[in-house]
Amino acid sequence: MRVVCLAGGVGGAKLADGLQQILAPGELTVVVNTGDDLEIHSLAVSPDVDTVLYTLAGIAEPTQGWGIAGESWQVMGQLARLGDETWFRLGDRDIATHLFRTDRQRRGVRPTEVTIELARSLGVQSRVLPMTDEPVRTRVRTTDGWLDFQEYFVRLRQEPSVLEVRFEGIENATVTPEVRDALRAAEAIVVAPSNPIVSIAPILAVPGLLAEIATARQRGVPAVGVSGIVGGKALRGPADRMMESLGEDSTALGVARRYVAAGLLDVFVLDRVDEELAAAVRALGPEVVVTDTIMTDAGSRALLAREMLSAAAWQGAVRAEDRHAGGAAPRPQAADPATGEEASR
Amino acid sequence: MRVVCLAGGVGGAKLADGLQQILAPGELTVVVNTGDDLEIHSLAVSPDVDTVLYTLAGIAEPTQGWGIAGESWQVMGQLARLGDETWFRLGDRDIATHLFRTDRQRRGVRPTEVTIELARSLGVQSRVLPMTDEPVRTRVRTTDGWLDFQEYFVRLRQEPSVLEVRFEGIENATVTPEVRDALRAAEAIVVAPSNPIVSIAPILAVPGLLAEIATARQRGVPAVGVSGIVGGKALRGPADRMMESLGEDSTALGVARRYVAAGLLDVFVLDRVDEELAAAVRALGPEVVVTDTIMTDAGSRALLAREMLSAAAWQGAVRAEDRHAGGAAPRPQAADPATGEEASR
Repeated sequence: MRVVCLAGGVGGAKLADGLQQILAPGELTVVVNTGDDLEIHSLAVSPDVDTVLYTLAGIAEPTQGWGIAGESWQVMGQLARLGDETWFRLGDRDIATHLFRTDRQRRGVRPTEVTIELARSLGVQSRVLPMTDEPVRTRVRTTDGWLDFQEYFVRLRQEPSVLEVRFEGIENATVTPEVRDALRAAEAIVVAPSNPIVSIAPILAVPGLLAEIATARQRGVPAVGVSGIVGGKALRGPADRMMESLGEDSTALGVARRYVAAGLLDVFVLDRVDEELAAAVRALGPEVVVTDTIMTDAGSRALLAREMLSAAAWQGAVRAEDRHAGGAAPRPQAADPATGEEASR
Repeated sequence: MRVVCLAGGVGGAKLADGLQQILAPGELTVVVNTGDDLEIHSLAVSPDVDTVLYTLAGIAEPTQGWGIAGESWQVMGQLARLGDETWFRLGDRDIATHLFRTDRQRRGVRPTEVTIELARSLGVQSRVLPMTDEPVRTRVRTTDGWLDFQEYFVRLRQEPSVLEVRFEGIENATVTPEVRDALRAAEAIVVAPSNPIVSIAPILAVPGLLAEIATARQRGVPAVGVSGIVGGKALRGPADRMMESLGEDSTALGVARRYVAAGLLDVFVLDRVDEELAAAVRALGPEVVVTDTIMTDAGSRALLAREMLSAAAWQGAVRAEDRHAGGAAPRPQAADPATGEEASR
């Protein structure tokens, strides 16, 4: 099953890892947010792309949500001695990635091609694609004024409230041939439990990308999403607080509302703790599957991935039925978390 | 005594260290070759400037002639895993220097200002100045064709014979205000035992720099040089082989001939093993001092520095006498290596 997963950093990387575990090599394409990108110490850093790459390569630092496991910090230590800013921490091996990227991009190689090269060198079996090759920079208007995303996110530890979000450069961004081909070949589209405002929204804002998704859905390709806000709390990062300060529901319902508004959603996966939101989400249009969504280890990543693909496959079948006559396929059951097997198989 | 030292990498750095040891803080300015500079992994690397900085900061790796003592190699190891070229080795802490430089230069800060910042952060008490702020790249025509200097020097280990040398960009290079001020304030000019062809020649080729030196010499400022070729062998690097393949004497006499031709030399310091060349050098014009020139430790660096400044001071006195009436000052004696005290004091 050829799957395109839209992803930001940590949550996106975890679900991508789950998908990679259960799909055949090459079946997964992860389209990753680049609005978080920054230039620092002259390096082109693409934090979400790298988190996905490192996670799929099995070398990601397991707890902090960025970087490579077992890193050393010699470069950073010396930069500090030289009086340079060090609020955005970069490990030594991580810096090699940025040097590789920066050097090639300066020579005119597209970010997509660089990412494909990095994935190959790191032994990643899936396709990892930046959402676009053009520079897009997420900026947030906060109670401290307009800030670059990483200033808000890392330097100020997400303390100021976000009042407005802009994706600078998005009007000049284009869908890459690689993203277009992946969406045209997709048999399911998966929206990872990433921040809907600053991880998923920039991807959807690339001109032409939603149209490709709409075309795919018209072909009957199901789109399935999951919330990174569970029980009203973001699993990681400031998504809940951002939703709130932007005047949206800081719940899985708020997340679903965004995806439905973007015309993105056939099925939405809710965590069991959010079961009471199921009716409200269903009222927006999508089917709802309730299951365990929190990915604490490799097994739970694969389990959520299986749930989502199972729901997508079922939904795809429903839509095929709809197109051919109208009979409904049986609704998917939640997987049994004890065995990792879908009950519906 | 305000001293300007023209220097390349290792030999230049050692003599600069000797000069720094015996001068008051701030009295020494080292004008360093930048023809060896390169861009690699997107980093602006200035090998001779860094060798001088690290040596004067007391953090230079003591044997290999480049880099920082006790380096780690995490970035390079990961770059190798990513399939990047690694023939030009960069340690982790060294990379911090290059990131610092690259970042600032991309923002429009002049290499001179960056070098002054680096020197301050590293606690260097002397002024270290790139020979120019404009990019100059030494290229060598060899039996393998035209090569960038570092390709010849590092990647091909100086194996091909050098048939021609060019300093690309030199016609657009200018003397920086800082180098000009240092030369105008100088009380002695010292030419370090660096490669005369690819370390000292690029400095002298910066348009306007020789004219500044000539003006200083007209003021009576003595210029004293020393050979990095001793007993017909380069102390380090390919200077002897380059002199030979370029059809010059691969001896201290050949080195002296170059400096005399450039109008650079009042006094030339010969190693004791080259004593038989003294008459031939003297026949070219400069006075000659014979002493131990090989710098094996901090003490011998200071000793050579003392010799050279002593010879310069004496020559300056002679020239002052010449200007005022004509009586000769007593000729300098070689320092006593046992005590490090000049016999002439």
